[in-house]
Amino acid sequence: MQNGVNREIPIQIDGLGLLKPFYKKMHNGQPKNTERLKERQLNPDKNKIVESLEQAIAAIGLKDGMTISFHHHFRNGDYIVNMVLKVIANLGFKDLVLAPSSLSETHAPLIEHIKNGVIRRIETSGLRGELANAISNGLMDIPVVINSHGGRARAIASGELPIDVAFLGVPSCDPYGNANGYSRENVAASACGSLGYAKVDAQYAKNVVLITDNLVPYPNVPFGIPESQVDYIVVVDSIGDPKGIVSGATRYTKNPKELLIAKSAAEVIEASGYFTDGFSLQTGSGGASLATTRFLREKMLAANIKASFALGGITQQIVDLHEEGLISRLLDVQSFDLKAMESLKNNRFHHQIDAEYYASPDNEGCAAHQLDVVVLSALEIDLEFNVNVITGSDGVIRGASGGHCDTAAGASVAIIVAPLIRGRMPTILDRVNTVITPGYTVDVLVTDQGIAVNPLRPDLLQNLKAARLPVFSIEELKAKAERIVGKPDPIQWEDKIVGLVKYRDGSIIDVIRQVKKES
Amino acid sequence: MQNGVNREIPIQIDGLGLLKPFYKKMHNGQPKNTERLKERQLNPDKNKIVESLEQAIAAIGLKDGMTISFHHHFRNGDYIVNMVLKVIANLGFKDLVLAPSSLSETHAPLIEHIKNGVIRRIETSGLRGELANAISNGLMDIPVVINSHGGRARAIASGELPIDVAFLGVPSCDPYGNANGYSRENVAASACGSLGYAKVDAQYAKNVVLITDNLVPYPNVPFGIPESQVDYIVVVDSIGDPKGIVSGATRYTKNPKELLIAKSAAEVIEASGYFTDGFSLQTGSGGASLATTRFLREKMLAANIKASFALGGITQQIVDLHEEGLISRLLDVQSFDLKAMESLKNNRFHHQIDAEYYASPDNEGCAAHQLDVVVLSALEIDLEFNVNVITGSDGVIRGASGGHCDTAAGASVAIIVAPLIRGRMPTILDRVNTVITPGYTVDVLVTDQGIAVNPLRPDLLQNLKAARLPVFSIEELKAKAERIVGKPDPIQWEDKIVGLVKYRDGSIIDVIRQVKKES
Repeated sequence: MQNGVNREIPIQIDGLGLLKPFYKKMHNGQPKNTERLKERQLNPDKNKIVESLEQAIAAIGLKDGMTISFHHHFRNGDYIVNMVLKVIANLGFKDLVLAPSSLSETHAPLIEHIKNGVIRRIETSGLRGELANAISNGLMDIPVVINSHGGRARAIASGELPIDVAFLGVPSCDPYGNANGYSRENVAASACGSLGYAKVDAQYAKNVVLITDNLVPYPNVPFGIPESQVDYIVVVDSIGDPKGIVSGATRYTKNPKELLIAKSAAEVIEASGYFTDGFSLQTGSGGASLATTRFLREKMLAANIKASFALGGITQQIVDLHEEGLISRLLDVQSFDLKAMESLKNNRFHHQIDAEYYASPDNEGCAAHQLDVVVLSALEIDLEFNVNVITGSDGVIRGASGGHCDTAAGASVAIIVAPLIRGRMPTILDRVNTVITPGYTVDVLVTDQGIAVNPLRPDLLQNLKAARLPVFSIEELKAKAERIVGKPDPIQWEDKIVGLVKYRDGSIIDVIRQVKKES
Repeated sequence: MQNGVNREIPIQIDGLGLLKPFYKKMHNGQPKNTERLKERQLNPDKNKIVESLEQAIAAIGLKDGMTISFHHHFRNGDYIVNMVLKVIANLGFKDLVLAPSSLSETHAPLIEHIKNGVIRRIETSGLRGELANAISNGLMDIPVVINSHGGRARAIASGELPIDVAFLGVPSCDPYGNANGYSRENVAASACGSLGYAKVDAQYAKNVVLITDNLVPYPNVPFGIPESQVDYIVVVDSIGDPKGIVSGATRYTKNPKELLIAKSAAEVIEASGYFTDGFSLQTGSGGASLATTRFLREKMLAANIKASFALGGITQQIVDLHEEGLISRLLDVQSFDLKAMESLKNNRFHHQIDAEYYASPDNEGCAAHQLDVVVLSALEIDLEFNVNVITGSDGVIRGASGGHCDTAAGASVAIIVAPLIRGRMPTILDRVNTVITPGYTVDVLVTDQGIAVNPLRPDLLQNLKAARLPVFSIEELKAKAERIVGKPDPIQWEDKIVGLVKYRDGSIIDVIRQVKKES
């Protein structure tokens, strides 16, 4: 047959099968585009911008029962989840599965959407505030599923958690969807730095809608999310409250108890046997964890030891060490403060990674698996070293799984920092109320009143003793606390399961039950 | 049931189905890793390094008939294709589909593998030298499929061209597979810069084997290929010949005819109506195309016009303009010379893109579709403005489809630069021997003896005439050449089809037939 440039083309070829002949195609009614880049970008027929969330939802073909996802890089400043759910509820959709990377206090309006049947079930890493309280009191028929950051990435990548539509707020975006957590020319009011969690959704979701308040010219490179993963863009007045996005998460502690713990944690790292040139570390954003970085700096300078990389949620404290030449590379899945965002923008070796790269257990070589040391917080720890970071001492959900179990499993030395007593409650229990991280992946507990080493790690015990650090058995530390505040009464639970805690591999490590109704 | 941390877990939950209880897993015989990062990286049980290509091939489970792929960033210096095929042939595999992004003169040893039945068919962008000659003379039973760079990315991403194993040579790589086209600490001898074509293979191939001669410490970031896409790593003595990798491709022409064409092409851009602040451009690596960049620079300085981005194969000439502040962003799918590689390493806004991002027609917003101007070469062009860049005037394959048809289709002004007469052959024919790029996507022809505008673009014709440029009809230019060298005899062909030329959307735009046997 004759094709569109008058060439004779066979209908089929042995070994290759049927052939599709070329014919001339028109785009937007033209044989080819003739608009200038500047105009083309702003031409609604040629860019990905739609006029409203309603239009994006219609274009995608959202249906009852679908799974929608969000990221939590805007933390408690996020406007996106509430904004999108309000529109979806108004349009009358029902039975949706909500699968954000995490949720905050600001998401209390979801309670109404759950009551009205708009949301059927939730998968998240964390829950806080009124929503968490309502769920702990039995709001939902189907338990909330709690994922770790690595576990969520694994579930999405493996198809265990298929996402129909990802609604992703982005602090800068060009008309084709190249998006960043900051703006190149002028830092956006709502900058969040790394889009590490959102990157997974953008890559795997069937449909991706970006929501931005800061449209920039093409090409917005280097990008956190590439245009090739984006279907529609909606421009709104504001995507978040800057104050909530970079809230007090990375305050520098003046609490003497936290400083004591931090100093002790730095001594543990120094004595561990892993404090050698080229070591790798992750420190969380809790007060003691942050302060550990500062104490460690002095030891690194004194011993002329440099770290090969720091991982995870990146903070000013870590950036300072990077800029000082003490940490060679930063692998940033989440930027906790303005300094971290500035650094991601400007420092060549401050590298944005996605959650799968960070911590997916299906990614054997993931960054979390290359950690020498991680410093993590805890709400409770028990005699088996199991750690709870999700339910408070009243049994109510008030935290997040995060990267806790991922990094504990990956790091050669997983250090938990916690005060021995918090309020009037001891931190060490016979049995934590909820297991997020299994004890066999936890190596050392550092409190303000002494250190305990997991009996699975005689090597660490020996090293810390040799350095004359104040090492006790965890039972001894527990007894110390109980001598002061006594043994707490066990929490009273209803039978109803309100939460399922998944370990990073997708298995169920614990359940969370409804807290006892006051009678 | 009781799980691995002694928690009571229900067997199933309504709305969530059966649950998988947590149990303790051992890794490498340990409850958790306790090695230091430095040792762990080099532990064969924990990194992705295997001892030989044979071992990688066994681990993957290569089978007869599978599709294997390679990239062509090492150009004529490539050792990888021949190295891997030799091993595969020795192991006795047959009937493989070879799907590299392109092939060069250096790949003549493939002839034997084709004769011996190791290779059943080939998909590539280009073919040159002895191999191309043999294929043009009927070597293969199944025609070679010629893809454009954007078309190949589309075919791979859409599943039309599924790749079983990608064997990708990389100039630097850490023990988990974070790989780059250069080395951070010391530029590798075999640096190639961008890994833009290889990135597509790494992302979509079922199995990915990296081959490197430069193992660097973890984490090798920023990376061209992330570890999460890599299965095995093989370390060899040398992956390529540096001289062949950065060969004369980007020489600066002293040919007066090419300089004349280049000057004229720059004048066409200036007069086109698209030469405004923020315009976008791509210039190829041919002599006239490269020189166009230099002439354009003067016009940009004079008019105080800056480009928003330059795309494609990046050269020293383009980098110079970027560093001078005349081009804001570089989108680099392929780095043509050492200066481009250095720039990719050091310049924050010199950004590595993959071939799908570059030019896939399934990616509506791809970078090629954002071009105002592209300057491209041609072996032949005809009265319909169809362009041939693959077969010589003797009908033998000696070129590559490359990004030619992708960027011509995407750019608002696609300019073909070519001498009116090459050797004793006219460039303009009634009908090109092979169509790579359909004429309706080509806008202007610039020769050393005048300019022709496609009648589909009266706007351009008017602008160039207004600027008093020497515009002719393409028929007039053709007649000019024929007055000097006459009309060439048509090529004699056999009936056998030796090549199928796919347009970027996968349709067949032309066939290449076997050249006439000498009788």
